[in-house]
Amino acid sequence: MLTLLFASPANWDEYREVLPGALEAAGIRAQIFTLENQPAPDQVDYLIYAPSSPLQDFTPFTRAKAVLSLWAGVERIVGNTTLTQPLCRMVDPWLTEGMVEWVVGHTLRHHLGMDRHIVNPDHVWDPASPPLARDRRVAVLGLGALGLACARALQGLNFAVSGWSRTAKDIAGLPTAHGADGLRATLAAAEIVILLLPKTPETENTLDAAALAAMPKGAVILNPGRGALIDDAALLAALDAGQIGHATLDVFRVEPLPKDHPFWSHPGVTVTPHIAADTRPASAARVLVENIRRGEAGEPLLNLVDRARGY
Amino acid sequence: MLTLLFASPANWDEYREVLPGALEAAGIRAQIFTLENQPAPDQVDYLIYAPSSPLQDFTPFTRAKAVLSLWAGVERIVGNTTLTQPLCRMVDPWLTEGMVEWVVGHTLRHHLGMDRHIVNPDHVWDPASPPLARDRRVAVLGLGALGLACARALQGLNFAVSGWSRTAKDIAGLPTAHGADGLRATLAAAEIVILLLPKTPETENTLDAAALAAMPKGAVILNPGRGALIDDAALLAALDAGQIGHATLDVFRVEPLPKDHPFWSHPGVTVTPHIAADTRPASAARVLVENIRRGEAGEPLLNLVDRARGY
Repeated sequence: MLTLLFASPANWDEYREVLPGALEAAGIRAQIFTLENQPAPDQVDYLIYAPSSPLQDFTPFTRAKAVLSLWAGVERIVGNTTLTQPLCRMVDPWLTEGMVEWVVGHTLRHHLGMDRHIVNPDHVWDPASPPLARDRRVAVLGLGALGLACARALQGLNFAVSGWSRTAKDIAGLPTAHGADGLRATLAAAEIVILLLPKTPETENTLDAAALAAMPKGAVILNPGRGALIDDAALLAALDAGQIGHATLDVFRVEPLPKDHPFWSHPGVTVTPHIAADTRPASAARVLVENIRRGEAGEPLLNLVDRARGY
Repeated sequence: MLTLLFASPANWDEYREVLPGALEAAGIRAQIFTLENQPAPDQVDYLIYAPSSPLQDFTPFTRAKAVLSLWAGVERIVGNTTLTQPLCRMVDPWLTEGMVEWVVGHTLRHHLGMDRHIVNPDHVWDPASPPLARDRRVAVLGLGALGLACARALQGLNFAVSGWSRTAKDIAGLPTAHGADGLRATLAAAEIVILLLPKTPETENTLDAAALAAMPKGAVILNPGRGALIDDAALLAALDAGQIGHATLDVFRVEPLPKDHPFWSHPGVTVTPHIAADTRPASAARVLVENIRRGEAGEPLLNLVDRARGY
């Protein structure tokens, strides 16, 4: 009988519905505790954890074999020096599906120029049709599970996709570039740029004034990744200058986006309220349970965080 | 040396750029005439034709081996009794790609509820996220080249797709229904309905008041097919009653959509100006030339219209 501590009060209501069934389906006998109803810390076998949890000192959990994050982004806790246990990110297949839907949907929205038909107060009939996706150059920055899934889905619709990552990657059928020089070249060739990099000290302000200036005039930015990937002031200046045509942003440095933030009222910005990649408890529970099964069987854990890289 | 008559003044400027090259690439020697510069009708080997052409009497073209339409929809000429030559519809692979992009884009737009973020004057941060595409039921009405390509692309994004056609079709991996009973069942199960039927006497007003009433409350309609597939007055009534949540329409009974048509100002209607499926001259020219090659080689013509069915 394993002892699990579900250390995220905000998520317990959703997971209490699905986690016991997922454990039972995997043949794992476990008792699930919460922060309100804690076992002795040195009896906990696995922590199930959101980085927003009040629990920030992992020292007493001497027996815990892993901390299993409910979130894909672990930047808030990756530097926590009390966290010496193996840390796993959430890579939820249904979260990936949701992200692909948001990215492909907003890419098609901008590709097709939908907004001028959705908002058309003068009832203008202007049958100018867009180019085909095969003639639309899209760049995906960040080639982890999410970035790669989005790149593949966009290729499936014939978009001319290229990818960029900090370190070199060789991916069949996808032109890629890496490093600072590769970033400049990738941005210079992209009409639509999609940000799916993790947040690390190296990726902060990936789109700064110089990067924005390297893009083709009128380019579109989609950011479902992390707010800190963009220099907000530089983006606003580039939008005002017409250098950037539009930005559709799902993530922000402060969330909810403050009422007085200029993104809200800028005509070149669409705000979506951090909905691109919701973790779906039913599938996420299966991922958590699979890692517990692996931990008990002595098999390698899935989605283990590399502390040096930060993700 | 073949004699071709390009009988569509409105399209000549685009095709004069690409048709000679396509003929040359196929090794076909031909002289291309236009309506302004006509050869003797009994010398014409092939007519390349748009149904909007002023040419409506095909009697003098005694030698013509085929009439090759530039349009997919041939309802305007299929009943022309002077047209006794084989008639081919345009099935342009790039037109199909454009249609798939419009259909997938607007399906994702409604699936994700994009409009409330694109138009959000009160700056509401409401992080309610949509279901996954795998839980969104989409029906495609019409399973010709366009309908099937759209169904496959939507399945590729995990949408729960079903198809309906007038006559029974058995398509691997796609649940289908047919006939009047099948239509009612298909509509009753669909949250998003996509109309890609040809215009024939049988398909006119496919979405009439009874069909609209059979759909789940709040369902969405996409019509990139033909304007006459919908009973306009019934649709407006269903929108006003909240029975239909939204209609995004690309085709209309009269085009351009008249300035005083209520679709323009109805908040539940998005008008796109017949842009879903533009024929792309570069790829369409290759299709025309392939049919000329087949005609000369005595091979069966592609996309031959069945006069009895009307498409």
